[in-house]
Amino acid sequence: MNPLRIVLASPRNPLNIGAAARAMSNFGVSELRLVNPYEVAFREAKSAVKSHHILQAAREYPSVADAVADCGLVVGTTSKGHRTLDHPLRRLEMGGRIIRRKLAATPVALLFGSEKFGLSNDEMSHCHWLMRIPAREEHGSMNLGQAVAVCLYEIMRDPAAAKAAPGPKQAATAEQAERVTQLLEEILDRSGYVHARVAGSTRLKIRRLIRRMDLTAHDAEVWLGMLRQILWKLVS
Amino acid sequence: MNPLRIVLASPRNPLNIGAAARAMSNFGVSELRLVNPYEVAFREAKSAVKSHHILQAAREYPSVADAVADCGLVVGTTSKGHRTLDHPLRRLEMGGRIIRRKLAATPVALLFGSEKFGLSNDEMSHCHWLMRIPAREEHGSMNLGQAVAVCLYEIMRDPAAAKAAPGPKQAATAEQAERVTQLLEEILDRSGYVHARVAGSTRLKIRRLIRRMDLTAHDAEVWLGMLRQILWKLVS
Repeated sequence: MNPLRIVLASPRNPLNIGAAARAMSNFGVSELRLVNPYEVAFREAKSAVKSHHILQAAREYPSVADAVADCGLVVGTTSKGHRTLDHPLRRLEMGGRIIRRKLAATPVALLFGSEKFGLSNDEMSHCHWLMRIPAREEHGSMNLGQAVAVCLYEIMRDPAAAKAAPGPKQAATAEQAERVTQLLEEILDRSGYVHARVAGSTRLKIRRLIRRMDLTAHDAEVWLGMLRQILWKLVS
Repeated sequence: MNPLRIVLASPRNPLNIGAAARAMSNFGVSELRLVNPYEVAFREAKSAVKSHHILQAAREYPSVADAVADCGLVVGTTSKGHRTLDHPLRRLEMGGRIIRRKLAATPVALLFGSEKFGLSNDEMSHCHWLMRIPAREEHGSMNLGQAVAVCLYEIMRDPAAAKAAPGPKQAATAEQAERVTQLLEEILDRSGYVHARVAGSTRLKIRRLIRRMDLTAHDAEVWLGMLRQILWKLVS
């Protein structure tokens, strides 16, 4: 079982969902996760004549956080190269290399935004970094199914490489990172750091801040211990 | 103008034709050529709401020979890795590198077979060599639009590389190679080399033989001179 998860956020076109599943099959990746898909599209994709077993086994999640909870690395895809972003942005070639290495140690989620709008800021805030297919921006964004195919080609081109890599330290799962995030948020909230007026954007900033730490599983637990202690102090 | 031509042989699905055009746009390649397309599909693709200017400008050709006539390198794509072939078979990574270098000197045609059957032996015989996307064969062939996207990503990932490469000798065009082929065929025919019973397969073998020579434009002319002389001798 390849530990790469393809996560489609709010997909709307059944043909694109089917195309993503087909590309996954071509490149030996089996776990498809859909966040809040357009129900009609998901149903149509599954009932298509050539529907794939990957699609039959695809699971639905209410949020990105749930869909990536077991993953130690969450990478968002974007066609934009110049937007000002708090996230590191890597070209597919370089990003693919890092993902291959990480796959030896932890499940990795590759997150694709909706066909129309791409990833929202909230969806992006769950990502450790972003990856860009080096296509020509002035020529419009890529089709979702084609973007999945190109990413998988680059990541899976040499499956042996992932296996041969020395195991890095076990990465924190997204769930652990999210627990750190929420504890920190609560602490900041109770500390008066977060103004009600800007709470939403601050929350995203904090989430990104934590993802950039690239925590190991061990360090995440250390952080959780520290933060719990701080919180206990604040409320007691 | 990028001198890469995307040639689709007998495409049947309008969505695939549209997807090929969209991927071309994403990666900055503009010349789409269709050999003997299913007419309804071509019409539908062109009339689609989001039809691209690349599709509007796409031209139809009666044969592969006509579609690749101005190209100095013709590369066929295949999902098969193990079929016994007279053609050299290269992985996309290596093939992409060669194509980038060649593009500095000559137009290059990238040939895709029909969705259902891939390239026929006759279509393949026009190719200098074949290129394979390293997907998992046991998981079925790739979707045509996705295959085009993956190939273009690999070939166009570094457009500067093509420009920076030192110009190799000018390659013979496919038209020149075909003229050499036909002259040789006629000579062999008149020499009694070709049995009527096996004429078809012999013709393909000869065509492949000539493509494997990887002629320069200059050498092609030399060959044409020699063969014309031989033919004149045979008929006089």
